[in-house]
Amino acid sequence: MGSTIIKGGTVVNADATTRADVLVRDGRIAALGLGEDWAADEVIDAGGLLVMPGGIDAHTHLEYPVDGFTTRTADDFHDGTVAAAYGGTTTVLDFVKKEPDATLRDTYLRRRATAASKTVVDVGLHAIVPPRDQQPDVLDDLRLLVAEGARSWKFFMAYPGTQMVDDGELLEGFDLARRMGVLPLVHAENGHMVARETKRLVDGGHTAERDHATAHGHDSEAEAVHRAIVLAESIGTPLYVVHVSSAAAAEEIARARSAGAKVWGETCPQYLVVAYEDYEGLGDQAARYVCSPPIRERSNQSGLWHALRTGAMSTVATDHAGFCLHQPEDLPPQKLRSPGFFPKVPNGVPGIEDRLMVLWEAGVVGGHLDPCRFVELTSTAPAKLFGLAGQKGVVAVGADADLVVWDAHADHTITAAGSHLRTDYSIYEGMRVTGKPVHVLSRGRHVVDADGTFRGDPGDGEFLLRGESETFATTY
Amino acid sequence: MGSTIIKGGTVVNADATTRADVLVRDGRIAALGLGEDWAADEVIDAGGLLVMPGGIDAHTHLEYPVDGFTTRTADDFHDGTVAAAYGGTTTVLDFVKKEPDATLRDTYLRRRATAASKTVVDVGLHAIVPPRDQQPDVLDDLRLLVAEGARSWKFFMAYPGTQMVDDGELLEGFDLARRMGVLPLVHAENGHMVARETKRLVDGGHTAERDHATAHGHDSEAEAVHRAIVLAESIGTPLYVVHVSSAAAAEEIARARSAGAKVWGETCPQYLVVAYEDYEGLGDQAARYVCSPPIRERSNQSGLWHALRTGAMSTVATDHAGFCLHQPEDLPPQKLRSPGFFPKVPNGVPGIEDRLMVLWEAGVVGGHLDPCRFVELTSTAPAKLFGLAGQKGVVAVGADADLVVWDAHADHTITAAGSHLRTDYSIYEGMRVTGKPVHVLSRGRHVVDADGTFRGDPGDGEFLLRGESETFATTY
Amino acid sequence: MGSTIIKGGTVVNADATTRADVLVRDGRIAALGLGEDWAADEVIDAGGLLVMPGGIDAHTHLEYPVDGFTTRTADDFHDGTVAAAYGGTTTVLDFVKKEPDATLRDTYLRRRATAASKTVVDVGLHAIVPPRDQQPDVLDDLRLLVAEGARSWKFFMAYPGTQMVDDGELLEGFDLARRMGVLPLVHAENGHMVARETKRLVDGGHTAERDHATAHGHDSEAEAVHRAIVLAESIGTPLYVVHVSSAAAAEEIARARSAGAKVWGETCPQYLVVAYEDYEGLGDQAARYVCSPPIRERSNQSGLWHALRTGAMSTVATDHAGFCLHQPEDLPPQKLRSPGFFPKVPNGVPGIEDRLMVLWEAGVVGGHLDPCRFVELTSTAPAKLFGLAGQKGVVAVGADADLVVWDAHADHTITAAGSHLRTDYSIYEGMRVTGKPVHVLSRGRHVVDADGTFRGDPGDGEFLLRGESETFATTY
Amino acid sequence: MGSTIIKGGTVVNADATTRADVLVRDGRIAALGLGEDWAADEVIDAGGLLVMPGGIDAHTHLEYPVDGFTTRTADDFHDGTVAAAYGGTTTVLDFVKKEPDATLRDTYLRRRATAASKTVVDVGLHAIVPPRDQQPDVLDDLRLLVAEGARSWKFFMAYPGTQMVDDGELLEGFDLARRMGVLPLVHAENGHMVARETKRLVDGGHTAERDHATAHGHDSEAEAVHRAIVLAESIGTPLYVVHVSSAAAAEEIARARSAGAKVWGETCPQYLVVAYEDYEGLGDQAARYVCSPPIRERSNQSGLWHALRTGAMSTVATDHAGFCLHQPEDLPPQKLRSPGFFPKVPNGVPGIEDRLMVLWEAGVVGGHLDPCRFVELTSTAPAKLFGLAGQKGVVAVGADADLVVWDAHADHTITAAGSHLRTDYSIYEGMRVTGKPVHVLSRGRHVVDADGTFRGDPGDGEFLLRGESETFATTY
Repeated sequence: MGSTIIKGGTVVNADATTRADVLVRDGRIAALGLGEDWAADEVIDAGGLLVMPGGIDAHTHLEYPVDGFTTRTADDFHDGTVAAAYGGTTTVLDFVKKEPDATLRDTYLRRRATAASKTVVDVGLHAIVPPRDQQPDVLDDLRLLVAEGARSWKFFMAYPGTQMVDDGELLEGFDLARRMGVLPLVHAENGHMVARETKRLVDGGHTAERDHATAHGHDSEAEAVHRAIVLAESIGTPLYVVHVSSAAAAEEIARARSAGAKVWGETCPQYLVVAYEDYEGLGDQAARYVCSPPIRERSNQSGLWHALRTGAMSTVATDHAGFCLHQPEDLPPQKLRSPGFFPKVPNGVPGIEDRLMVLWEAGVVGGHLDPCRFVELTSTAPAKLFGLAGQKGVVAVGADADLVVWDAHADHTITAAGSHLRTDYSIYEGMRVTGKPVHVLSRGRHVVDADGTFRGDPGDGEFLLRGESETFATTY
Repeated sequence: MGSTIIKGGTVVNADATTRADVLVRDGRIAALGLGEDWAADEVIDAGGLLVMPGGIDAHTHLEYPVDGFTTRTADDFHDGTVAAAYGGTTTVLDFVKKEPDATLRDTYLRRRATAASKTVVDVGLHAIVPPRDQQPDVLDDLRLLVAEGARSWKFFMAYPGTQMVDDGELLEGFDLARRMGVLPLVHAENGHMVARETKRLVDGGHTAERDHATAHGHDSEAEAVHRAIVLAESIGTPLYVVHVSSAAAAEEIARARSAGAKVWGETCPQYLVVAYEDYEGLGDQAARYVCSPPIRERSNQSGLWHALRTGAMSTVATDHAGFCLHQPEDLPPQKLRSPGFFPKVPNGVPGIEDRLMVLWEAGVVGGHLDPCRFVELTSTAPAKLFGLAGQKGVVAVGADADLVVWDAHADHTITAAGSHLRTDYSIYEGMRVTGKPVHVLSRGRHVVDADGTFRGDPGDGEFLLRGESETFATTY
Repeated sequence: MGSTIIKGGTVVNADATTRADVLVRDGRIAALGLGEDWAADEVIDAGGLLVMPGGIDAHTHLEYPVDGFTTRTADDFHDGTVAAAYGGTTTVLDFVKKEPDATLRDTYLRRRATAASKTVVDVGLHAIVPPRDQQPDVLDDLRLLVAEGARSWKFFMAYPGTQMVDDGELLEGFDLARRMGVLPLVHAENGHMVARETKRLVDGGHTAERDHATAHGHDSEAEAVHRAIVLAESIGTPLYVVHVSSAAAAEEIARARSAGAKVWGETCPQYLVVAYEDYEGLGDQAARYVCSPPIRERSNQSGLWHALRTGAMSTVATDHAGFCLHQPEDLPPQKLRSPGFFPKVPNGVPGIEDRLMVLWEAGVVGGHLDPCRFVELTSTAPAKLFGLAGQKGVVAVGADADLVVWDAHADHTITAAGSHLRTDYSIYEGMRVTGKPVHVLSRGRHVVDADGTFRGDPGDGEFLLRGESETFATTY
Repeated sequence: MGSTIIKGGTVVNADATTRADVLVRDGRIAALGLGEDWAADEVIDAGGLLVMPGGIDAHTHLEYPVDGFTTRTADDFHDGTVAAAYGGTTTVLDFVKKEPDATLRDTYLRRRATAASKTVVDVGLHAIVPPRDQQPDVLDDLRLLVAEGARSWKFFMAYPGTQMVDDGELLEGFDLARRMGVLPLVHAENGHMVARETKRLVDGGHTAERDHATAHGHDSEAEAVHRAIVLAESIGTPLYVVHVSSAAAAEEIARARSAGAKVWGETCPQYLVVAYEDYEGLGDQAARYVCSPPIRERSNQSGLWHALRTGAMSTVATDHAGFCLHQPEDLPPQKLRSPGFFPKVPNGVPGIEDRLMVLWEAGVVGGHLDPCRFVELTSTAPAKLFGLAGQKGVVAVGADADLVVWDAHADHTITAAGSHLRTDYSIYEGMRVTGKPVHVLSRGRHVVDADGTFRGDPGDGEFLLRGESETFATTY
C-alpha cells in the first residue's frame, strides 16, 4: 500500500483539537506533524477542514432478515457500507440472529462470510442470544464464537414469545459473558408491558401506525433499563444499553452511573431530532417512523441531549434498518404490508449514511456538543467499548487510517434520492445540515473523494476480530 | 533552541494510549511518529516508559504571605517550581492576595514580576477577590487585570472578618467574571458555621490541633458548595470549586452536574490518601496536617475516589503551602506557633513535588484510575479549565513541549529529606510508591534528567497570559 | 359556662371520620357518643354536616405595622379575628416585630396586651428576631419571653439591611431556641439574590408590579430553604419554614424529610390557587397580588399540591396582611403608594377568612386532599407544631371546644364585599366554592351561628401561653 | 351483649392522645367522655394505662399448608388467634393458597369456613393468585371471590416454578384488581435472581442455613419492589408490598411515594430487631430464623426504622408462620427436616403474639416511634388499607370495641415457653420488654383479663367481609 498526507487540517480527537498534518502509510497513521517535509504518494489538502477519526456505527441491521424477507431491496453489506462510507462511517457493527433452521454458530459463520465478502469498510458482528428454548445449547455456541469475533452479545428484554429472554436467561448469559470477557448488550423494553399495552390498544381499535408509540411506553423502557442494570451488577458485568429512546430510561442510566455502575447507553439520531409530532398526522405513512423503542414526543428530546452533554450517555449509533415503503412487484411489501395495523409494521428506520451529518447539525451546530465530544460519541467511545481501542476511534500514530476530512461549513440537504442506499424514503427528508464529509479513508484507502466518487471493491473492508471491551478494565 | 526526540515510549493522552516517538523542536511538539527517520540534537530513550503531558498544578501557594510572615523558609517561586519540576509538574497556578497596604492590582503586578523572575517552569496567577470593605473599587482592578493574565478569580466563603465575602459580593463578582470571560473559583466552606463550631470547641476547651477537623464540618463544606452553585447558576457563570475535601460536598457537585450545572471540582492528594486517623493521636504534631478544609476520616476517602471515577470531580491539585515545623532562630515559628491551640495553626500542607507520584500510586496502581484518566485529572482538564487548551495538557503536535517521561515500574519512597523543597516534614513521609518521573521537559528544555540533575535557571519559565476557559464554551 | 350538644354530625379528625354527637361543657369537649341520652343548654343540629376542629391559622399579620403605618384600615385584632371566626378559624398565631423605639420584650408585651384585649378567638404570638445590630441584647429578651408565650421565633433570611440576619445570627438564634424548647421559623429567601435581581430589574427599567415575581426567583427561595435546614441540623433543632411558595423549595423540604430532617413546611392558599398569570396583565393593579415570596406561575402549583399530598409539607396558613388599595383621605396609600414601582409595594395579601373555604374547594373538592388530611393541614398539625397538642386540633374528649360545623354542600362565592374584613379587594374575588362553615364554636361559645350572626365580645378570646412544640419529641 | 366502661385511661389514637373513659355497648364504642356518670355491666380500671385500638396483623399464616404438611402442630385458627389476642391483636388477616387438587374458589371457601369456625378474634383472608398454568380460569374465581371477602390479592414475584407469576400475569392481575376495587399485594423478590444465587451457593457447597440470607440479596428484593411499583403505576392501581426486609427496598418505596406513587410498605418485627449476626454462628439451628425475605445484617435495621419514622413505610405485620423445630414422632420434621441444606428449610418464623410488645419496646421505648405512630403502624393504617376504616383501627364512637388496655410500665420477658402458641422456640427468646397488654376486648368481649385468663370460644370471632381499601380514594 501507498502513502498519503492529509495536509493543513485541524485534527479533532476526543480530548483535544490541534492543527497537524497526518501521514498515512500502509493503512495506518504513521506520523502527525506540522510543516514537516514529508513526501507521499497522495496529498489531500485539508486546509480549512477538520480531520476526525472515521465514524463507528455500533448498531446496524444490514441485509436484515425479518419474518421471511430481508432488507436486501434497500441494502446489503456492500451497498450499506458504501452508504456508511459516504456518511463518514468507516466501521460498522451489525448483528447476527440465529436462523430458525440453523444453530447460532452456523448462522454466525455464514453471516460473517457474507459480510466479509461484501463490505467496503471494516465490519464486526454482535451475536443475538436467542431464548433457551430455540436452542438449548446456545451457551456452548456463544463460548466458541468469542474467538470468531463475537465479543459482544445482545439480549432482548422485549418481544415475548419470539426473542425475549427472561431474567433467568439474562443472568445466565451475563454470567457467561463476564467470564468470557464479552460485553452484553440489551434491548431494554419490558416485553410484557408492551404486549399488554398493545393488546389494550388493539382491543380498543387503536391500531394506527402512530399508536405504536403509545404501546411502547416510557415506563416499559425505563423499567427494563433499571432491571438490566440490577441484573448486570449482581453478576459483576459491564453492560451496554442499545438505542435508549426515553429520557426516563436515560435517567436510570445516569443514576446508576452516578452510583458507580458500569453501564453505558447508546442513543440514535432519530430520537434526538425526530418526534412523534412529526408523524402523528401522517396516517399509514407514519409506518416510515415505526421503530422500537419508538420515536417519542418532542418534549422527550431535551432529556436525551442532556444525557449526552452530561456524560450519562456514551454513544450515538443508528439502529439502521433499511425497510422500504414500496417493493418491486415480485416482493412482499415491507413498511406498508398492513396499513392501519401497527403491530405488523416492520420495526426500524434507515440512517447509516446520515448519522454524522445529522448529529453534527443538531448537536454541534445546535450547541449541545463540541467537536471533541462529537468525536467521542461517534467514534472514540464505541472503539473503546467494542474492543477496538487504540486501533480505531482516534487520530493517533499507529491507529488504523480510518479518517474523515470534514467540511464544517458545507451545506447539504438530506434526501432519500440523494442518498447512496436504495431505501425509498428518509425520516430526515429535507433536513438542511451544515457540515459533511469531503474525504473518507478506510485503512488508508481513499474511498470517498471530494468529487463524490466511490473507490473501493466488495471485500476491501476487513472483518474485525475484536479484543476485550475496555469496560472490563475501567470507567469513563 | 534545539531539538529532541523522545524515542520508543508510549504516549498517554486523556483519550488514548499509543506507541509513538515525539519530536520536539523550538519548545513545541513538532511531530509524533513511529519508526520515522528523524534526527535531533538530543535523543531521550523512552523504551518501556510512558510519555505524558507535564502536570499542571492549578492550586499552589508559593512564597505564601500569611499574617506577616511568608513560607520563604520552605520555598519561593524558584525552589517551589524546581520541586514541582522534579515531581513532573511543568505548570503552576498560584494566587495573589491583596496586601494590606496596596491595591489588588499593585500586589498582582508585583507578585507577577517576582514569579516571572524566579520560576523554572511556566506559572500563572489566580487573583483573590477581597471583601469589598478592604478595597471598595476592587472590581475596577479586576477588570484591568484580566489582560494581565488574571483570567481566574478566587472568592472565599470562609474566614468571616478577613477574607470571606457575602452572597451579595459573590453575585457581583460572579457577574463581572461572566462578563469578562473569567472563571470564578470558590473556597467553599460556610464561614459562619466554622466560626460557631470553633467557638463552641474553644469554649469547651477542645483546642487540640486535631479538633481543627471537627470545627470544619462536612456540612459547612457541602452547604457552601451547594450555595456557590446556586449563585453561579443564577448568574449564568461556570464555577470551579477548589480543594473539595468532603464526600458530601463532592455529592453536591455530582448532583449539580447531573442536572446540567457548569461546575467543576478539584480535590487534592491529601484528602485521598491521608486521614484524620493518621494524626488524631499525634498531639501538637498534628499541626503538620492542619489545612482547610481539613483532612477527614478515612471513611470519607471512598466518596472522593468515587467522584473521580465517575467524573463528578475534574482535577487533582495540591493546595501546596510550605509551612515548616521549625524555623531558623531569627524567624517566628509557623506550624508550631501556638501548640495545643488549633485556631492559630497556619493552614496548609506541602505537596507540590509529590502530587503525581502519590496519585499514580493510590489512583492508578490502586485501581481507581487508568493512565488516561490520570492524565486528564492532572493535566488535560486543568489546561482546558484555565485557558491553556491546545497549549498544555496534551501530547499533540503544536502543543508546548511540557513532557514527563514516566517510569511506571520505578519504586520510590517519599520523605521530606529526599524532597527538593526545604519544608522539614512531609505528610506522606515513608509512603512507598511505584511510578515516578525520569525525564521532565519544560517547553522543550530538558530540566530534569534521569540522573536527577536539575538544568535550568530562575526565570526560564514563562508567565502565562492565559486565554478564556473552555468552560464558557462547553461541558465535559 | 353552659353546655351544648352538636348532634347528628360526622366528626372529622386527622385520623378518622366517625358519626358522633359532641357534648360540650365548660368550654371543652366533655364527651362523644352516638344516640346517648344527653341534655344540654343548647342543641346544634349537625345532621348532614361535618364537625371539625376549629382551624388554626399559624401565620397572620393583624394590625400590621409597616413603615410607619399599620393595616388598621382593614383589620385589627378584633375585626381580624371576627373574620377568622366567620371563616372557621378559631386560633390565630400572629407576629411581633420589634418597634424601632422599643426593645423586643417591650414591644411583645404591649402587642400581647393589645391582642388579648381585642381578640374574639384564641391568639398567640411568634416573636420576630431582629438583626443583632438593632438590639444587641435581643437574645436576653427572647430568653425571658418564652415564659410569656413566645415559644416560636421567626428569622428572616430576606430583606438585607432591615430584617435579614446572617448565618451567624441564625446559628446563634437556633441554638438558643433549641436550648429553650422554642421552635424556630424562617422566612426563607436569599436576601442577597433578591436584592441583586431587584437591582438588575430596576436598572433595566423593569419596575412594574408583576416584576416583583421575577425579582424573587425560585432559586433564591430553594437555596434559603436548603441552607436553613443545614444550619438547623447542624444545631440539632427542629425547623419550620413559613409560606413555602416554590415547588423547588418544597422539594428541598421533601428531600430533607426523606433523609430524616426535622423540618416542616407551610404553604398558603394564594400559592395553591392563584398564579402569576392572573395578575401579569393587570398593570398597577397587580399590586393586589404582591407578596413575598411571590405568587408564582400556574405550572408551579402542581408541585405544591404534590407536597401536600405526599406529606412533604405539613400546614396551610395564610400569611394574611390586610393592606388596602384605597385609604381614607387622611391616610397614606398602601398597596398603590408607588404605582409602577414594585420595590415600594407593601408585601402581603388578605385571606384570614377565606383559608378553609378556598382549601376545601381546591383541595378536597379538587381531589388532592381527603377531609382527614384537610383537618390535619389546617388544624391538627399546627396544634402539634405550636405547642397546642391535645388542647387544639382534634375533636376529642378534653380538648378545647373549638369546633366548626361544616356544610360540605353549601355553595358560596368569595368577594371582598361579602367578607367581614374591611379590605377593599380580594385575590379570590368571584371564586365559587362548595363547602363552608355553618356554626363556629370557640371554647364552647357559639360565636358564629347558622344565620350568620356573630356573638362575642372583644377579649373573649384567650392569649395562648403555648407549650413545647411536639417537634422536639417526635417526627410526623 | 352487655356494656363495659374502661375508666381512667389515656386513649391513644393515631392523631392524638387524650384522657377519656370509653363506654362500650353491644360490641361497639358507644361513647367517650371524661367524668361522665355512666353505668355499665363491667368497669375496667385503666388508671395509669393506655387504651389503644386492638392490633391488626395484616400478614399471618395460621395452620399453614406447606409441601404436604401444615403448621397445625404449632397453631390453627383457634390457638393462633388466642395467641394473637394475648398479644393485643384483635384482627388477623391470613392467606388462602389454592390447593393442588381444588380451585382457588373452593379452597377459599373451605378455608374461610375453617377460620370462621375456630377464630376467637376477627379474621379475614387475602387470596393468593396462582400462576396461570395452575388454574387457567383463576381470574374468574377471583372476580367471584370479591363478594366473599377476598378484597386483597397477593402475587408472588418469587419462587419460580411454583408460585411466581411473570410480569404479564402481574399486569393482568393488577388490572382486574383495579377494576374490582381490590388491593394487590406483592411478595417482592426477583425469583430468578434468588434461584441463580441459590444455585451458585449450592454448586459451591455453601448450603448452611445461614446461607439462605446470601441467596436472597438486597438487590433481588429492591429490584422486585421497583418493578412492582412500575407495573402497578402503569395500570393505575394502588399497591401493597408485604414484608419489606431490605433498607434498599424500603428506599425504592420511599422514592416512589415521594414521586406520588400509591404504594404502601409493610415490614415485620423480625427485620427490625433480629439480625443475621444473631444466627450466623448457630449452625443447623439457624433454621429457626429462616424466612423470606431473610433476616438481614444489623446494619440494615436503621434503614427500616428510618422508613417507619419518615412515613416511607406504613405498617408492621408479622408474616407469622409457626413451624416447629421438633415434631411428635409420627409427623415429619419441619424446620430441621434437612439440616445443613438451606433450600429445604421451610420459610417462616412465629411472632403473632409478640408483635406489639416487640415493636413497643424497640420502637417506642427505643425512641423511634411515639405512641400515636405505634398505633398507626399496627392498627390504624392496616384498617384503612384493608377495607376496615371506621370499623377498626381507631378508638372512636361507632367503631368495633376492639381495644387493648396497655401497661406501658410493665416488664415482661418473651419466651417460647411463656407464649400461648405451641411453637417450640422463639426468635425473641429472652428479650426483655417494657409495655404489654393488660386487658383485651374483641367486639366488646373481654377476652383477655388482667389475670391472664382467656375468655372466649372458637368461632366467637367474625369473618370480615371487608370493604374497599381507602388506597383507592386517597394517599396517606
